[in-house]
Amino acid sequence: MADRPRRIPEATVARLPVYLRSLLQLAGEKTGTISSERLAEMAGVNAAKVRKDLSYLGSYGTRGVGYDVEYLLFQMSRELGLTQDWPVVIVGIGNMGQALANYPGFTSRGFPIAALVDADASKVGHEVHGKRVRHIDELPDIAAEQHIAIGIIATPAHAAQDVADRLLAAGVTSILNFAPAVINVPATASLRKVDLAVELQILSFYQQQRDNEGDGAAAPAPSADAAG
Amino acid sequence: MADRPRRIPEATVARLPVYLRSLLQLAGEKTGTISSERLAEMAGVNAAKVRKDLSYLGSYGTRGVGYDVEYLLFQMSRELGLTQDWPVVIVGIGNMGQALANYPGFTSRGFPIAALVDADASKVGHEVHGKRVRHIDELPDIAAEQHIAIGIIATPAHAAQDVADRLLAAGVTSILNFAPAVINVPATASLRKVDLAVELQILSFYQQQRDNEGDGAAAPAPSADAAG
Repeated sequence: MADRPRRIPEATVARLPVYLRSLLQLAGEKTGTISSERLAEMAGVNAAKVRKDLSYLGSYGTRGVGYDVEYLLFQMSRELGLTQDWPVVIVGIGNMGQALANYPGFTSRGFPIAALVDADASKVGHEVHGKRVRHIDELPDIAAEQHIAIGIIATPAHAAQDVADRLLAAGVTSILNFAPAVINVPATASLRKVDLAVELQILSFYQQQRDNEGDGAAAPAPSADAAG
Repeated sequence: MADRPRRIPEATVARLPVYLRSLLQLAGEKTGTISSERLAEMAGVNAAKVRKDLSYLGSYGTRGVGYDVEYLLFQMSRELGLTQDWPVVIVGIGNMGQALANYPGFTSRGFPIAALVDADASKVGHEVHGKRVRHIDELPDIAAEQHIAIGIIATPAHAAQDVADRLLAAGVTSILNFAPAVINVPATASLRKVDLAVELQILSFYQQQRDNEGDGAAAPAPSADAAG
């Protein structure tokens, strides 16, 4: 607390992982320093925003030189909590839950999948990608034993709020929701969502608009020259 | 074009799928009319915003009665382009691509997975969930034959921009990016992204903040009473 008096705006927090990714790439290329302009380009934002965002971390760069990549990477990782692991429980082991359980990107990024949980007794006890599915009633024990930091909800829509409530009751206050449902959590918890249907429908909205406006130029069936 | 002179703001477009979901639920419950207040509650926004958003569709509701659910559902589906299918190609058949290829939620929502594509010759010809993987060089033919409307990028980060360029060259102007990379597309195309790493890191940022501020109250290892 002594170390963090300032409040970082939400929009800035959401960009930190994007900067982090650029910095990891730069570090991999042995780049020593980076200008705000170049970092902005990599992250897909403007340079003034980069400078403002980094100032929240206490990083101001050096005029004509830029930012030290290694140090910025250290600051960013520390700020995002990536100097430790955050064990994850996946709740709901249907198609989506199984796909997520099999995705190695969680563990490799410091979010190991510690437990799989389902309400369906017929699924409990089965192994999914090397992990035994446990019953959702065990959630409080699992959360405590496995030091669960993040709950991933991959249930059908109708079960999502109940699962969120159970996660919160078990002390899990960070939730990533894949269920196609609006979930409410108290202000003392964090909720992020990934909604494939919403993303696809936003795309179909604009695609339809282009199809109508362009009179078929960008229609689902591409024209011969566009495809060539 | 004659039918759509107004520009719907991006933020409104992004909320339409959320309203759609609420309306589908209401229709399933045989609810005839809905107030903006109730719809707002279901969608997790405020009522004034709902009224403003729906006004872009030419829907104003009836004072004291609200909106006709069936008609609003029809308008919303039509506006989002959901009265037709939008065939999808998945590019990159690694862990993420395979998981997506196996997810039934695409087809059930009107986004059938029409083709799987990879640049790795050793994957080409193999069947993944009943579909034969084809080489990315065939993309122009596949796009034309299958009337591909949306390209899903599930490649490693370093390949993502090249794949986006190939999709665009093949006439596919709607892209959903799962690769952990910033992609640039022209203004004539649409790009949405799903980035699990970013979502997890935003959660770990706030979790760490709570852990620090709360002196362990919401720590990865939940306290006994919180878990009880």
